[in-house]
Amino acid sequence: VHGDGGAAADGRGRGNGAPGRALVVGTGLIGGSLGLALRARGWHVRGWDADPDRTREAVESGALDEPGDDPRADVAFVATAPSAVAAVARRLLDDPRRARPIVVTDVAGVKASVVAAVGHPRFVGGHPMAGSEQVGLGGADPDLFAGALWVLSPVAGSVAGEPVTATDLEAFSLVRGIVSSLGADVVALAPEDHDRLVAVVSHVPHLVAATLMNAAAEGAEQDAVLLRLAAGGFRDMTRVAAGHPGIWPDLCADNADAIVHSLDRLISDLASLRDRVGAGDRRGLLEMLERASAARRHLPARGARPERLTEVRVPVPDREGVLAEITGAASDLGVNIYDIEIAHSPEGPRGLLVLVVEGRDAPGLREQLRRRGHRSTVQDLS
Amino acid sequence: VHGDGGAAADGRGRGNGAPGRALVVGTGLIGGSLGLALRARGWHVRGWDADPDRTREAVESGALDEPGDDPRADVAFVATAPSAVAAVARRLLDDPRRARPIVVTDVAGVKASVVAAVGHPRFVGGHPMAGSEQVGLGGADPDLFAGALWVLSPVAGSVAGEPVTATDLEAFSLVRGIVSSLGADVVALAPEDHDRLVAVVSHVPHLVAATLMNAAAEGAEQDAVLLRLAAGGFRDMTRVAAGHPGIWPDLCADNADAIVHSLDRLISDLASLRDRVGAGDRRGLLEMLERASAARRHLPARGARPERLTEVRVPVPDREGVLAEITGAASDLGVNIYDIEIAHSPEGPRGLLVLVVEGRDAPGLREQLRRRGHRSTVQDLS
Repeated sequence: VHGDGGAAADGRGRGNGAPGRALVVGTGLIGGSLGLALRARGWHVRGWDADPDRTREAVESGALDEPGDDPRADVAFVATAPSAVAAVARRLLDDPRRARPIVVTDVAGVKASVVAAVGHPRFVGGHPMAGSEQVGLGGADPDLFAGALWVLSPVAGSVAGEPVTATDLEAFSLVRGIVSSLGADVVALAPEDHDRLVAVVSHVPHLVAATLMNAAAEGAEQDAVLLRLAAGGFRDMTRVAAGHPGIWPDLCADNADAIVHSLDRLISDLASLRDRVGAGDRRGLLEMLERASAARRHLPARGARPERLTEVRVPVPDREGVLAEITGAASDLGVNIYDIEIAHSPEGPRGLLVLVVEGRDAPGLREQLRRRGHRSTVQDLS
Repeated sequence: VHGDGGAAADGRGRGNGAPGRALVVGTGLIGGSLGLALRARGWHVRGWDADPDRTREAVESGALDEPGDDPRADVAFVATAPSAVAAVARRLLDDPRRARPIVVTDVAGVKASVVAAVGHPRFVGGHPMAGSEQVGLGGADPDLFAGALWVLSPVAGSVAGEPVTATDLEAFSLVRGIVSSLGADVVALAPEDHDRLVAVVSHVPHLVAATLMNAAAEGAEQDAVLLRLAAGGFRDMTRVAAGHPGIWPDLCADNADAIVHSLDRLISDLASLRDRVGAGDRRGLLEMLERASAARRHLPARGARPERLTEVRVPVPDREGVLAEITGAASDLGVNIYDIEIAHSPEGPRGLLVLVVEGRDAPGLREQLRRRGHRSTVQDLS
């Protein structure tokens, strides 16, 4: 079953992203968005969800043409929970009733375990870095992937040292073509590299947020005032911990090695930091914090980072309309707001609105705000 | 010098927050806002900054009536860097030329070391939990403290086991009255308790953010793609690390014991977590993440938390006017936006706008957004 490799035997819709017949399995945010995006580009899309109600909703919302399997499908996107991907993919790839050799890809947040478990030349591991696991079909959007990063993980013959059937190049080319046609920016990363890197920037930070939140909640059992002292920084750092925890045991199990490695590194870094604080090493602390500050300011927000970003901080009352007033002032001036957040006072009806705006018009915006009674400070982030 | 205790010998402006003569030393965001707030309530305010240019700016912006000392001042707010507080406070309290016994308070983010170093009955340690250390005089606002939490740290005769002159009750009452008159919500906390709690919710989270950022930046030296994979969660968690590191060596030195204790606890928690991930303990991981999710959702944002908060997620393109459009729709409906942020795709011109709105009108807002072409999902946070 593994060695056929002839993914391009039937040319329809292959290699150039031209529309054909697709399957979408799992119709949450990502699956639903895929269905909408593919249909908008002329694909005929069938599919299903493990929950029949969600399958029906996907058809009603236009994410699927029809429910159910399609023996003539060229490609299948498996957008289920990570733990279900391998079984679904194998069933599709091994099904002898298929009219043509189907190419299968997935969207799970871990890649090595999934790619190794499927072990088929026409399986192309994928991970679109778009959307959020917290949002279901209701948030599905045909443009979700426009400009988003989409990791594809082709295999050259082994994963983490174990032999795995190499990815068929035409299968990879088909998936790459489709993903590109949806507007995504494709990055090819070996499965182990993907997993190692997302452990550092996603999995471990998420686990740390949950750990900080639990420590504070336990402290608050003894000192009820503790959480009233939690200001904007703490709220920012723990925000992801509010998400639905459902997929995390899967991600932790499938990416255990990289997460353990990255946690060990973090624990070691924190132990050094602890020693610096204990020893009163002001210079070492300042150097470490300055390095982090510079790195955070230069963190790329997207591939084509605007040439110049300016941060504008505006103290605002929490009242209706004040945001519309300020964002309206920006809009009137043609100043594009690149990022926005409110840093709340821990108490009371005050907030600090932090805007990151593009271009060189921040002084004009500041003046507009001043005329409307808002004091602001401006800082160049370029 | 220490034992006089007669803070109320001259009754002017004492105990009831009625206006008198104040000094503000240090004219950054907090000092400048204090000057504006006190002057707006009828106080005569003199003061200075270590930087003469900033003193001049404070006078020009209306934060000070006049530059310089005032021998007849009833109260002084020391809003300098933490490491300078004790010397400034002692100089004011010990000055034999003062016309009346001055009461001194401060705004530093650590309390035990400052209170012990000053050790005077007419010194009342304080910490307004408002604003941000990143913003200077330009962000000063007379209403900065309206509704904010303001910790005052009276001493009963010892700090961390060491004998310290007890705080004069009338001095405390004077500061409490003034702070309340500015609209702040006063919480009295022993200096050690304040320091222990802010280590948990502020100091250690800040240090962790810097550590995560540095680890990612170092990883990016080997894998340039790493930071392109950093999505909204990572950006949230490291945002505070972008702040100006200047005050942190002071805070770490002055609150070393509590920070080391809290870091030790965190390291121990992370080691347990690491073992759970390594052992594939899915149930333990899920339980831990569910606990954190529930705690984060119930994190009080302010004393009078709105009865009902709803989260509305709207995928939006990064274009001018879209924020004004959405916040305008909320404003038109009378829906108060309590919190707002953009979770960017790591690449490309797409974002996810996350609004937290008050009240029960979220379905109406969703409908309004739908009419304007925006799909959204709604989640009850109550």
